[in-house]
Amino acid sequence: MHLPHRREYCFPAVGVLYGGHEALKVTKFKNYLIQFFPGGVKVEVEEGSSLLEAARRAGYLLRTECGGRGTCRRCKVQIQAGEVFTAGIPNLSVKERAQNYTLACLARITGDLEVRIPSKSEFSFSPEALPTELSPGEHPGREITSLSLPVDPLVRVLQVQVPVATQQDNASDFDRLCRALTKSGLSEPIQADLSVLRRLPSFLRENKGTLRLLLKPGPEGTEILDLWQDSKINPYGMALDIGTTTLFARLLELSSGEVAAETSDFNWQIPCGTDIIHRIVHAGKPDGLKELRRLVVDATESLVDQMVKDTHTTRDQIVAVVLAGNATMEHLFLGIEPRFIREDPYTPAVTRFPSLTAAQIGLNLPPFAPVVISPCVASYVGGDITAGLLAAGVHRDERLTLYVDLGTNGEVALGNRDFLTACACSAGPAFEGSGVRSGMRALLGAIDQVQSDPKGQLLFRVIGGGSPQGICGSGLIDLLAQLHATGRITARGKFNREADPERIRGAGRRAELLLVNTGQMDDSSEIVISETDLDNLIRTKGAIFAGIMTLLKGVGLEASAIQRVVIAGGFGRYLDVESAIRIGMLPDLPRNRFEYIGNGSLRGAGLALLSGRLRQELDEISRRITYFELSTWPGYMDEFMAALFLPHTDISLFPSVQGRQ
Amino acid sequence: MHLPHRREYCFPAVGVLYGGHEALKVTKFKNYLIQFFPGGVKVEVEEGSSLLEAARRAGYLLRTECGGRGTCRRCKVQIQAGEVFTAGIPNLSVKERAQNYTLACLARITGDLEVRIPSKSEFSFSPEALPTELSPGEHPGREITSLSLPVDPLVRVLQVQVPVATQQDNASDFDRLCRALTKSGLSEPIQADLSVLRRLPSFLRENKGTLRLLLKPGPEGTEILDLWQDSKINPYGMALDIGTTTLFARLLELSSGEVAAETSDFNWQIPCGTDIIHRIVHAGKPDGLKELRRLVVDATESLVDQMVKDTHTTRDQIVAVVLAGNATMEHLFLGIEPRFIREDPYTPAVTRFPSLTAAQIGLNLPPFAPVVISPCVASYVGGDITAGLLAAGVHRDERLTLYVDLGTNGEVALGNRDFLTACACSAGPAFEGSGVRSGMRALLGAIDQVQSDPKGQLLFRVIGGGSPQGICGSGLIDLLAQLHATGRITARGKFNREADPERIRGAGRRAELLLVNTGQMDDSSEIVISETDLDNLIRTKGAIFAGIMTLLKGVGLEASAIQRVVIAGGFGRYLDVESAIRIGMLPDLPRNRFEYIGNGSLRGAGLALLSGRLRQELDEISRRITYFELSTWPGYMDEFMAALFLPHTDISLFPSVQGRQ
Repeated sequence: MHLPHRREYCFPAVGVLYGGHEALKVTKFKNYLIQFFPGGVKVEVEEGSSLLEAARRAGYLLRTECGGRGTCRRCKVQIQAGEVFTAGIPNLSVKERAQNYTLACLARITGDLEVRIPSKSEFSFSPEALPTELSPGEHPGREITSLSLPVDPLVRVLQVQVPVATQQDNASDFDRLCRALTKSGLSEPIQADLSVLRRLPSFLRENKGTLRLLLKPGPEGTEILDLWQDSKINPYGMALDIGTTTLFARLLELSSGEVAAETSDFNWQIPCGTDIIHRIVHAGKPDGLKELRRLVVDATESLVDQMVKDTHTTRDQIVAVVLAGNATMEHLFLGIEPRFIREDPYTPAVTRFPSLTAAQIGLNLPPFAPVVISPCVASYVGGDITAGLLAAGVHRDERLTLYVDLGTNGEVALGNRDFLTACACSAGPAFEGSGVRSGMRALLGAIDQVQSDPKGQLLFRVIGGGSPQGICGSGLIDLLAQLHATGRITARGKFNREADPERIRGAGRRAELLLVNTGQMDDSSEIVISETDLDNLIRTKGAIFAGIMTLLKGVGLEASAIQRVVIAGGFGRYLDVESAIRIGMLPDLPRNRFEYIGNGSLRGAGLALLSGRLRQELDEISRRITYFELSTWPGYMDEFMAALFLPHTDISLFPSVQGRQ
Repeated sequence: MHLPHRREYCFPAVGVLYGGHEALKVTKFKNYLIQFFPGGVKVEVEEGSSLLEAARRAGYLLRTECGGRGTCRRCKVQIQAGEVFTAGIPNLSVKERAQNYTLACLARITGDLEVRIPSKSEFSFSPEALPTELSPGEHPGREITSLSLPVDPLVRVLQVQVPVATQQDNASDFDRLCRALTKSGLSEPIQADLSVLRRLPSFLRENKGTLRLLLKPGPEGTEILDLWQDSKINPYGMALDIGTTTLFARLLELSSGEVAAETSDFNWQIPCGTDIIHRIVHAGKPDGLKELRRLVVDATESLVDQMVKDTHTTRDQIVAVVLAGNATMEHLFLGIEPRFIREDPYTPAVTRFPSLTAAQIGLNLPPFAPVVISPCVASYVGGDITAGLLAAGVHRDERLTLYVDLGTNGEVALGNRDFLTACACSAGPAFEGSGVRSGMRALLGAIDQVQSDPKGQLLFRVIGGGSPQGICGSGLIDLLAQLHATGRITARGKFNREADPERIRGAGRRAELLLVNTGQMDDSSEIVISETDLDNLIRTKGAIFAGIMTLLKGVGLEASAIQRVVIAGGFGRYLDVESAIRIGMLPDLPRNRFEYIGNGSLRGAGLALLSGRLRQELDEISRRITYFELSTWPGYMDEFMAALFLPHTDISLFPSVQGRQ
């Protein structure tokens, strides 16, 4: 992925060698040449810039799970020529420092450099890693038809015949047009954009009264957005899922509801912080919010470019947008201060957003193009969840449905057509690669599946083949299940040294299990799992299960009442339900009740783009959901403590697991 | 009046000396220096520019009743040094040409020049000429209270207390704000501008939940336009009357409805054509519409500057606008093509305009400031008439009311609270100075009153004193009445040579009456009235009376049923009702039924700014009016023919005149 060349940071370092950022004073900047390997890309950057930023400008996106604070050590690079100034001592081994390794986030440019980026330090965003998230077979138009709803997009082209003005009927051009539209069944009042009124008189007469209009119909009135010149050209709409890590976009042909193109990219905000909390912190810096908004808008523009290229359309044809994301991402996209999402009592600025246009949110599409933002429920149950529930049809289903979004946070919803509840589990990002030493996202080189052979030997599957770089969420869940099944760990997540004396080493909190030998790696590290990692993973799975149990108890139901479990989100597709049940993350239900919905947020956004009824239902979902604030919910803590066991302190909740153990 | 320096026209003249504009080809431009006297203002203009445009750029607004086509001869100037190229032979006397007079509209710059502008050629827009149009005693707020309505402005500041978010109530900031607003009685849905949402979280906490909001309340919902920082600063609204000739602006303090400032200026579009028809023609030229829009917007901005200066406010405080004008002016202000207003069947693009903002119409006020455009009825019954009817309260009055707007066109409305009718009389601009040789607008130097002494000697009153420059509308009406009363003209408007043998000269259509001797003038011309002028004036007064009669017959009523006559418009205040009845322009009713409303359009705009109920009524007025299209109305032509008499062919319609003659 190549990011556009931009200049954001400026950490001047002239005359100061060591110290905090605050001590640095601007004097005068020189430019230096930085060359990155592999690739050999050169960029010129100002003295004092961060090496992380220089890499970004050269098109290298380094891993910075900690948000560039020098703690996660993921952005390790090797200086091959030249010297850098480092604010503070980077957390690296003596050996690493001797080999001129440093952390790019802490390094400031004070001269020309040659830098090697180890493949582990870079996000490997390869095409192979992504398509698994998309569902090429989907046809949102047919999905809507199957619900017995008409395809009734946010914006549509309508041809009307406007009677010519006569001496008997010399009502204004606009009034005659309104009459024709009202006859066609469109709701009043009919409003027109000023740009339409400006061109209406000539356009009407040039076309002998036959007008093709771009309309935004609605139950409370109709907006005429534009005069549509060419009958052969189709209008398109864009569905967007703005994730903390990844952006997904889908171009839909509005009249048929067919998917014309889809694409994805990292969220270009990642260098400003990998998780929501670090993004919010970054937004609080001077111009930080503006920068984050710019980055995600620019990233979206690049997705548009890609889709426009793939479909041979033009940006002019993309006349409607539905955007879904978690509350923080939606706030950042719109440039709304997210600060209080993070501070007790966790209050978003807004959950149901006003009607917006492309011009207002700064997207380079027709300025009038309406942009619908999927409504949120609370700070941590966002527009991605409401859109996902819409896509899964939970709100229309008779069956009691559990919806689990396995993202950074782990949102859970429970309900059916009669009621809806939801909570955020604060599961933490362990399944996304943070807080687990060898953890990583479900990208190229990630171990995504772990099994064991009859002798208890662990077997690994690597995304894209090749040598493994780390373990992603589904791999970690499998691993936990297999380590427990093979007796390598106890129900409390402690190593049982006797079970694998060769690979389990160290003691106490430093105890770890070597999963992959150094020899197998293309870098100097090993893939290991430590007791601290195990603890993190168990807390994460425990948080999700506790969330599910809290919702169930809140509505007075047993887990067995759940008739359908919908899994959505980042690594949902790779997830082995069996493993997830075995470790006690998901309730022990008949396996045929589980289904994977893919990117529920993107699917929901697409459906909302195509159906007025579903847009209304999306809004209703956000209003109907009873939100459980787990941080203060009585009984949640007990549920959580009880779930810090493999599978659970109350084994009767997991009869199928009990039977096998 | 100083116009801003702008460059609009460019008539290159290199290598071509005489010929039509089309023959001229662009080659290369030099700049020349033009100096104007009196004043000595210098401007540098491109070779080929028109001298009229050069004068405008130097701040001299020349009279161009013909729209710069070389026919009205009003823009006569004297070249004192240098030479100009003239496209065609200007319609000037041999003597004038010998004295180096030329018409500025036809003259193209081919070298440095010194130019003298005779005072008669320039619009004399002096403060003394205008205040008569304004009514310093008016208090729109009190007017609304006297109607038992609340002062309920288009935009208002409201202070609300938003409860702090707690763990028990962590609804979004916007949701808590909405709840507080709903409690205060504001209508749902409540929408907020994105810029408000962006600042809401911090603003809310900095102010401990006490917010002052700028709101646009309405029965169908409430819009939050802005966060209002300073409690000591008042919001203002602007009422605008955009006339073909003159612009009037009034700044109203929104909470009290008090007039804070008012000002006026010429419509800067005048150099592009003095009347509506010439403006529409100009709008059809390349970039003509854009130019006209720019000119009227710039003129409005200069009015804002003046009022802001007068009141020590800032533009930020002007948060709402109501604009009224005739249909063409409203179209031009918004940049909407007016072309078909002029072509049979006279169809405007739009009569009821969408909700607009300052940003949309390009006014340099807060971008969110709502702009309401007074709705039109038809091409020639515009938003100025609907606003005037609102101001006169015709639609609320039990009494049958005749509303006569004596502008360029002469619009007439008849009705009461039960019905409303209106028509445009196509009276022509004779009363505004066009088509009458010595005619002029009611400006400094205009004869505005004509009386006769007992011996039949004519006596003239001149606006601002000094020597007369011409006769304005009220003067012409007086003159017609006096010429008839003193027997100088017949009931058909022909001279009776015997009545004043010294002053009546020439014969047939060239016959004319010398009103003011050459000696009294500061220029080389005389003030005369010709039989052609008389014919024009009688046709004009006849058109108005025929319009009134057509409306009356249309609703089956006699003139005597009219209980109230409201006079509005340009020269209404100078109008002598007695004279107007004597010449048969207004119906012969008891004189106490006549009242002068001043600038009805401006007053109506101000009322609409301050009252939601009246804004709604303004819209209802535009919908309720039955429009009579006189050009095709059966019987109108007969009415018109019958009215081409002083006072009328049916003298029984004018009993009080009959008695005196």
